[in-house]
Amino acid sequence: MAVYTEVPDDALAAFVARYNIGHVTSCKGIAEGVENSNYLLGTPKGSYILTLYEKRVARGDLPFFLGLMDHLAAAGLSCPTPLRDSSGQMLGELAGRPAALVTFLDGLSLRRPQAKHCAEVGEALAELHHAGHGFGLKRANSLSIAGWAELVGKLGDAADRVHPGLAGLITTELKALQADWPKSLPDGVIHADLFPNNVFFMADRLSGLIDFYFACNDFLAYDLAVCLNAWCFEEDRSFNITKGQALLTAYAKTRPLNQAELQALPVLARGAALRFLLTRAYDWLHTPETALVKRLDPKEYIRKLRFLQSVSSIRELGWELSA
Amino acid sequence: MAVYTEVPDDALAAFVARYNIGHVTSCKGIAEGVENSNYLLGTPKGSYILTLYEKRVARGDLPFFLGLMDHLAAAGLSCPTPLRDSSGQMLGELAGRPAALVTFLDGLSLRRPQAKHCAEVGEALAELHHAGHGFGLKRANSLSIAGWAELVGKLGDAADRVHPGLAGLITTELKALQADWPKSLPDGVIHADLFPNNVFFMADRLSGLIDFYFACNDFLAYDLAVCLNAWCFEEDRSFNITKGQALLTAYAKTRPLNQAELQALPVLARGAALRFLLTRAYDWLHTPETALVKRLDPKEYIRKLRFLQSVSSIRELGWELSA
Repeated sequence: MAVYTEVPDDALAAFVARYNIGHVTSCKGIAEGVENSNYLLGTPKGSYILTLYEKRVARGDLPFFLGLMDHLAAAGLSCPTPLRDSSGQMLGELAGRPAALVTFLDGLSLRRPQAKHCAEVGEALAELHHAGHGFGLKRANSLSIAGWAELVGKLGDAADRVHPGLAGLITTELKALQADWPKSLPDGVIHADLFPNNVFFMADRLSGLIDFYFACNDFLAYDLAVCLNAWCFEEDRSFNITKGQALLTAYAKTRPLNQAELQALPVLARGAALRFLLTRAYDWLHTPETALVKRLDPKEYIRKLRFLQSVSSIRELGWELSA
Repeated sequence: MAVYTEVPDDALAAFVARYNIGHVTSCKGIAEGVENSNYLLGTPKGSYILTLYEKRVARGDLPFFLGLMDHLAAAGLSCPTPLRDSSGQMLGELAGRPAALVTFLDGLSLRRPQAKHCAEVGEALAELHHAGHGFGLKRANSLSIAGWAELVGKLGDAADRVHPGLAGLITTELKALQADWPKSLPDGVIHADLFPNNVFFMADRLSGLIDFYFACNDFLAYDLAVCLNAWCFEEDRSFNITKGQALLTAYAKTRPLNQAELQALPVLARGAALRFLLTRAYDWLHTPETALVKRLDPKEYIRKLRFLQSVSSIRELGWELSA
């Protein structure tokens, strides 16, 4: 859950007056995203999301994030579209913070997605990768393999306080990934955090993607690996190969995967598992139990990583069934 | 900020299907109220608030709260109106908790109300007191003078950890109030918590009252005293007599105050200040600094109480100017 910056009445009215959406008829702080303060605004023209960017989001990255949403929406993707104020700007300032207004998307995020939803996500992810073509800005993935080495160093032996043996596990895994990480694969703009809470559905059809605040440039297949981990495991952490098949097949139908990508997917999935394991372990150790931000369980990703370490080919992730 | 119970997809759909509002097109956890989990639901028929009652609200009190909102709305007050399901019930169950759907009210709560807003609140409070007539259920005010003695006892010397000398202050004040508390005044249903965050405005006109989860039966003038404390002090804790005048005048225009009420108001205001001082001090000591529920500063009410202790007549609260 997010930390909320409280917005003074006058400041909100003055901020909104710069956009062509009428006056604010309601304003509710919403529990969406953990990095920023988000408000759902009602106006005579409809609903909008007001985001105040808190310190966890680097100000220098905001033109990339807002520009990307603008670019993707223009390319036909269903995602929040930043509004432009009377001077044509997408980024403003409110209550001492960078702030933006984006369109509101209908839909519900699913707590227990089924295989048919995984197929929808696979297709949407491939569409996102296509839609990212031609976007002019770049942002390096600070949470890719170079960033993991830094996080492993920062965690050190303290990782064992999260789970006995974790320090050894992540050191060994990092070395293995450094040896096997692909040097070159098709790359482009990736979402990098397309978990179920960032995908909306209406009556089992995907209706929109949100939260582009981890988006960056990286291997496209790495984004697919993040989704495999986030969507295709059951609550008991077992891998559901039917969901894997649904996700991979639907993705490849819209953006075919080449041989190098197919071969790399198991190691990319291990990398994606390590990435979320590391940040969750770090947050676990550095966030008080009772904090405003809900801590996500790092152990979930220990279980997923251990499964992926046992995987030797993409067929074990569902590909064989669809090839 | 509230603690959120997460609602499973299927359970939400099944719950909402029992009401005549169509399917859910969006569902956002909102930061409104600290006692319950609240969601803003979008449907083809409009917006609704879904409330899941957490353990701080006694289940046995829910028929009173929901019945009261229903009664007040039927009497013409702008407040959330509970929806009835296909079997005519206002109270259901969702995710293992008592749950209800109420209508959504447009409007914004003000962070810095002005005298004109205090007048609006005075009028609305008097209308609420009129509208409460004939409501069949009763609920004793557990946070009235008998409850304060219990809270003073629970706090004990620990109160000095909130502020040096607080234990002595509250013990002495409680004794003074027990001696001076009115025995009999016009009574009825009161809101008991009509702070600025529970009042919505649209373009400076009051548009609705929310959060009836402290409502109970007590002296009507005590409700006015709560509002005097909540609306008529400045951020520096000084009393603004113009706001006091606006609130009292507007209230009395709609529901005239008798001599006993006018005479009792200063002591009622002291009692109302002690009530919020005690619960805030208790929460301060028993809520971790980093908890999900935002702690409210008890010292604000020490300052207010000290001012009110110096007040000898209602004229010092703004009444003289309007009489």
